[in-house]
Amino acid sequence: MTAAWTLHPDRALPADPVTRPIAREIYTSVARLPIVSMHGHVPVEWFADNAPFVDPAQLLVVPDHYLLRMLVSQGETLPRLGVGSLDGSQPAESDPREIWRRFCAGWQHFRGTPTRFWMETALVEIFGVAERPSAATADALYDQIQAAIDLPDFRPRALLDRFNIEIIATTDHPWASLEHHAALAGAGLGSRVVPTLRPDAVLSIQSPTFAADVQRTGAAAGIDVTSYAAYLDALRAQRLRFKAAGGRATDHGPYLPDTTPLPDADAARLFDKGMRSSTDSAADRVTAGEAASFGAHMLFQTAAMAADDHLVMQIHPGVQRGHATAQTALFGSDHGYDIPVALEFTRALRPMLDAFGHHPGFRTIVFTIDEDVYSRELAPMAGVYPAMRVGAPWWFLDSPEAMRRFRESATESAGFSNMSGFVDDTRAFCSIPARHDLARRIDAGYLARLVAEHRLDLDEAVDTAADLAYRLPLAAYEAR
Amino acid sequence: MTAAWTLHPDRALPADPVTRPIAREIYTSVARLPIVSMHGHVPVEWFADNAPFVDPAQLLVVPDHYLLRMLVSQGETLPRLGVGSLDGSQPAESDPREIWRRFCAGWQHFRGTPTRFWMETALVEIFGVAERPSAATADALYDQIQAAIDLPDFRPRALLDRFNIEIIATTDHPWASLEHHAALAGAGLGSRVVPTLRPDAVLSIQSPTFAADVQRTGAAAGIDVTSYAAYLDALRAQRLRFKAAGGRATDHGPYLPDTTPLPDADAARLFDKGMRSSTDSAADRVTAGEAASFGAHMLFQTAAMAADDHLVMQIHPGVQRGHATAQTALFGSDHGYDIPVALEFTRALRPMLDAFGHHPGFRTIVFTIDEDVYSRELAPMAGVYPAMRVGAPWWFLDSPEAMRRFRESATESAGFSNMSGFVDDTRAFCSIPARHDLARRIDAGYLARLVAEHRLDLDEAVDTAADLAYRLPLAAYEAR
Amino acid sequence: MTAAWTLHPDRALPADPVTRPIAREIYTSVARLPIVSMHGHVPVEWFADNAPFVDPAQLLVVPDHYLLRMLVSQGETLPRLGVGSLDGSQPAESDPREIWRRFCAGWQHFRGTPTRFWMETALVEIFGVAERPSAATADALYDQIQAAIDLPDFRPRALLDRFNIEIIATTDHPWASLEHHAALAGAGLGSRVVPTLRPDAVLSIQSPTFAADVQRTGAAAGIDVTSYAAYLDALRAQRLRFKAAGGRATDHGPYLPDTTPLPDADAARLFDKGMRSSTDSAADRVTAGEAASFGAHMLFQTAAMAADDHLVMQIHPGVQRGHATAQTALFGSDHGYDIPVALEFTRALRPMLDAFGHHPGFRTIVFTIDEDVYSRELAPMAGVYPAMRVGAPWWFLDSPEAMRRFRESATESAGFSNMSGFVDDTRAFCSIPARHDLARRIDAGYLARLVAEHRLDLDEAVDTAADLAYRLPLAAYEAR
Repeated sequence: MTAAWTLHPDRALPADPVTRPIAREIYTSVARLPIVSMHGHVPVEWFADNAPFVDPAQLLVVPDHYLLRMLVSQGETLPRLGVGSLDGSQPAESDPREIWRRFCAGWQHFRGTPTRFWMETALVEIFGVAERPSAATADALYDQIQAAIDLPDFRPRALLDRFNIEIIATTDHPWASLEHHAALAGAGLGSRVVPTLRPDAVLSIQSPTFAADVQRTGAAAGIDVTSYAAYLDALRAQRLRFKAAGGRATDHGPYLPDTTPLPDADAARLFDKGMRSSTDSAADRVTAGEAASFGAHMLFQTAAMAADDHLVMQIHPGVQRGHATAQTALFGSDHGYDIPVALEFTRALRPMLDAFGHHPGFRTIVFTIDEDVYSRELAPMAGVYPAMRVGAPWWFLDSPEAMRRFRESATESAGFSNMSGFVDDTRAFCSIPARHDLARRIDAGYLARLVAEHRLDLDEAVDTAADLAYRLPLAAYEAR
Repeated sequence: MTAAWTLHPDRALPADPVTRPIAREIYTSVARLPIVSMHGHVPVEWFADNAPFVDPAQLLVVPDHYLLRMLVSQGETLPRLGVGSLDGSQPAESDPREIWRRFCAGWQHFRGTPTRFWMETALVEIFGVAERPSAATADALYDQIQAAIDLPDFRPRALLDRFNIEIIATTDHPWASLEHHAALAGAGLGSRVVPTLRPDAVLSIQSPTFAADVQRTGAAAGIDVTSYAAYLDALRAQRLRFKAAGGRATDHGPYLPDTTPLPDADAARLFDKGMRSSTDSAADRVTAGEAASFGAHMLFQTAAMAADDHLVMQIHPGVQRGHATAQTALFGSDHGYDIPVALEFTRALRPMLDAFGHHPGFRTIVFTIDEDVYSRELAPMAGVYPAMRVGAPWWFLDSPEAMRRFRESATESAGFSNMSGFVDDTRAFCSIPARHDLARRIDAGYLARLVAEHRLDLDEAVDTAADLAYRLPLAAYEAR
Repeated sequence: MTAAWTLHPDRALPADPVTRPIAREIYTSVARLPIVSMHGHVPVEWFADNAPFVDPAQLLVVPDHYLLRMLVSQGETLPRLGVGSLDGSQPAESDPREIWRRFCAGWQHFRGTPTRFWMETALVEIFGVAERPSAATADALYDQIQAAIDLPDFRPRALLDRFNIEIIATTDHPWASLEHHAALAGAGLGSRVVPTLRPDAVLSIQSPTFAADVQRTGAAAGIDVTSYAAYLDALRAQRLRFKAAGGRATDHGPYLPDTTPLPDADAARLFDKGMRSSTDSAADRVTAGEAASFGAHMLFQTAAMAADDHLVMQIHPGVQRGHATAQTALFGSDHGYDIPVALEFTRALRPMLDAFGHHPGFRTIVFTIDEDVYSRELAPMAGVYPAMRVGAPWWFLDSPEAMRRFRESATESAGFSNMSGFVDDTRAFCSIPARHDLARRIDAGYLARLVAEHRLDLDEAVDTAADLAYRLPLAAYEAR
């Protein structure tokens, strides 16, 4: 290919000549809508400090587990890609240009993956790159990107404007001081960069740091957590602090979605055992079954709290984190070794939905990585319970084909109105505009097909496209 | 949208310009074939009494759980939609016009759902409606529909002709007197409206009314059911009465599809326990496991009876009925709170197919709501066992995208000849023509793609379309 | 249809007029690439003896379980199709022409199935048939095919050339003498027809012939298997003999994919119990649980051996063999009564991948018949573990729609580079070219859509098509 690398205006729209012009019209109507990014993992420090990004490798390669995993599968290693071992025995590559070269040399392995689309969009649109990455072009691309990120208008806050991000949520520990969010509020960005409480660590009594994390949370809340009741109080207090700081949601990534509550006495006993589990006594060792029971109980309790304080409850279960045991021990988590498992929601969510599914104060948004449950479980439940919304296709499913399958599988039973609209989930800040753009294109294609098949009128399709891209995410996470 | 609301002749046909004309030709060849409706739930009284329908809300909204659930998910309540609580504490809306307005005001929530297609077809084709439902048009539509149903040619029997229904099956209790069917036979409609025996209630020893329902069934059969043997005799006798009244099938909706038989002594013991379970003795309480075992045993026994008397055995498992406990207790069943669960068929059906899968007198039609089993389990089994047919995509899957997925997933291993053809399943009488029309369109589109891809010749596609729309359902449920 | 029966050059390419020309260009670029057939079941004797095929029925009908099952489902019987019962009570049809007529009379039942495509391609391309099979044309077709196979250039070795088969693997017992492969090597075909070690029989301690099969394997290896350690030695020795004979892989079809290793002492104890299980002592009866544990352990051990000797480890679990118990007892296995079951891979493969997933000497190729695991489990794992490749859609999924779904579901997380490329799996020798041709067409169509949607450049698509058709299978099974 010798032609300049450009983005075709119709990319990711349906190919057939009847549907494409309709899709183009629908897409055009939503292409410039602001971005609502309520489920991201960009560090709040980036916005609070507003420091320049360091180099292309640290910005685009090292934090992106989609990239790391694919290159590892083809023979690269994490250290060679900039991720050193925790114990220092395998230090990270120190030359960012070498890391970048390895990524470029592996470009062909991303064919057919969403990374290809996201990265291509970012490289061309944000950095003006005009050549396909390869071993031959790596150095020139590196220099071009480095030059761009050295400019002042490439600072994180400037990018918020450039990316047209109306609101972005960070993900925060339950013991977070929220000082960065306070600083952002002082800078007039308090309602634009909002915190999200992610309490997984303090809901898992099998976590090795459970007791310490609970104490830290209590300290942040000003509550001495000496009992299960105080623990619940501390969680409630922190939820209100997050809400006061602009937070709209909590975020839950349990292994399984069970929501069966326990009798209070049993919950208190398990909590106490969890708090003692860092001791060396074998009798205090929490079993996997106990941890699962307590976790299910706490999902139920979280729903009860949410019904009171109106924080939206995001649930996305079903991932075996750190599947490769040795690699995870060496390099830590979030480097591409998380593998989904099959899920069951109908029975699992029933206790929670029985209790709060019609509660006017409660809203839960359920994401999944297991496509089997779209038409069978999630869409039928979201299609009747007022409190439940189906989230966007998550993680591995945030991709052209999977997003299409989601629309085709979930819409008929859930309807558009019971969905969250598009929600991204990434640490890769520069990919956020590309992700939203891709989702808008895929949705436009799906809606265009409904129009072309005379199953929806064009005005309805245009209206629904704006729902999915903008209005539904805002409404699903509305401040209440 | 200001243009008049009309139905495009090519609706639900594929958009691409190569495939559409082929699809149109195939569809046209089957569009006027009579309707064979062998798995419906329209009350037999409607045809026996032939009374006029009351009002648009009672005809089109209140009995349609697809409508109710979607509107409830968006904030409506069952009473406001015409469904009062069983205890009278929440009376139903008494003004049918108000119910209709609420439905019309929620019209946009049905975008992308099959309800949109069915209702649009019914409103335009049956009632001549020319405006999209909305708060603004609700009253005019109400008046227009009311005027139509007040006419004599809108009586139920007249609609049988108008809808071109060659045969329709009702669903009946095992203790049904069948008097309405006898009356219909007297009116010359005996082979047009036929009963279906649905014995779920008398196969579930955990049902609170099990003993009473068994006694009623015995009474109808003229058999005093004092033992497991007499129970089987009563079932056999009732099957023959249904068959004599034109019945062609039994209908089974167990929670799970297990068909493992028990030793006779164990079955008799569980039966006896079930008959005693209405007493207060805790020792007589039937466990869930016992009920499941007995239910599986009775599916096997039903297959044995079917091999003898040739009634077709319809099996459609996998629904958690009344998922919302409180709502179900308040309002009863069938209002939209039924949620599917994952199923396993390969092991579950093996005992039954081992025993009767090659029996010349046996036929079973298996429906599912769990799409995962199409290519993995149902199509491979139907593709070898002579006694088994795969039913149509059921319930939530009776929709454009799901019907397409069914064809794409099941055909390659089952072949068309091992399918039941289209089978509807609804209480919403006016939606029956629309449902069959939609299925014919989707099948035409699928067959047209095979033709356009040179995988099937056009004459074969036209022949297969008639199989799926008409000949296969007739043959699958043939009187023998 | 009166026109001559011909193959359209664009068959199985996408219909839409934008995508088709792109697909045609991509397909044309790979249509003539040699065939790499690394997972077949054609008997090695065919090539070693190079005897003429007997008649059309024995060549095309009797060995093809896809054909048998479909005709049985429609009322034929195995004996009437040429498969007699093992006990002689139901002898096979003795007139091959009658068998052929029955197949032709049932031709319409294959509409929409891959058999239709494969057989149509073989009949037209290999035998020059110009009429659709039917009762009316059966005899003429029979004579035409018989005349062809009587010619010298229809001998098996000649077909290797005609079919453009670069390499074909047979499937062989672990105790195989490999004498036929030695003979082929003597004839200069040693690297063209290679053996594959399939050790299922000697890994299943519940097999009634386990002890005998183990002893035979020991005898072939020259090792007296009196212990678990000697058993492992014998397996290692046989692996090396296979490798020396050109073998590149082992082939594993366990019921479930569990790979959890046992402590050596436990494994040895179970092995010993398996070796005694042919005795009549009830105490020595191996339980299903024990057999499953030992099988899982041996998958792990096989991976360890593979990491040493570099034989590729093919795993394709999840089939209930001989689902119809009585038919299987009467007629033996492999006649169409094998039914898939649901699978779980994420937990099941973890022990093996933990231990060997990054080992430079290990490669495993995982096939599945359960589509649910593509996007959820197989693609995410193959997309990070260097040792793992996702195989081709297997068995029932070796079909146009299922191959498309595979590309759409697995590519986005695995990438093309982590796949095996197309791998056929058949006893029906004449269908091999048709199967590869179909796969190349479907892949061309998928890649063309990516191009038409501007998600891939045409040069990349052409390059990837050659990967999938030829380079990836060669590389995945490379001799090392």
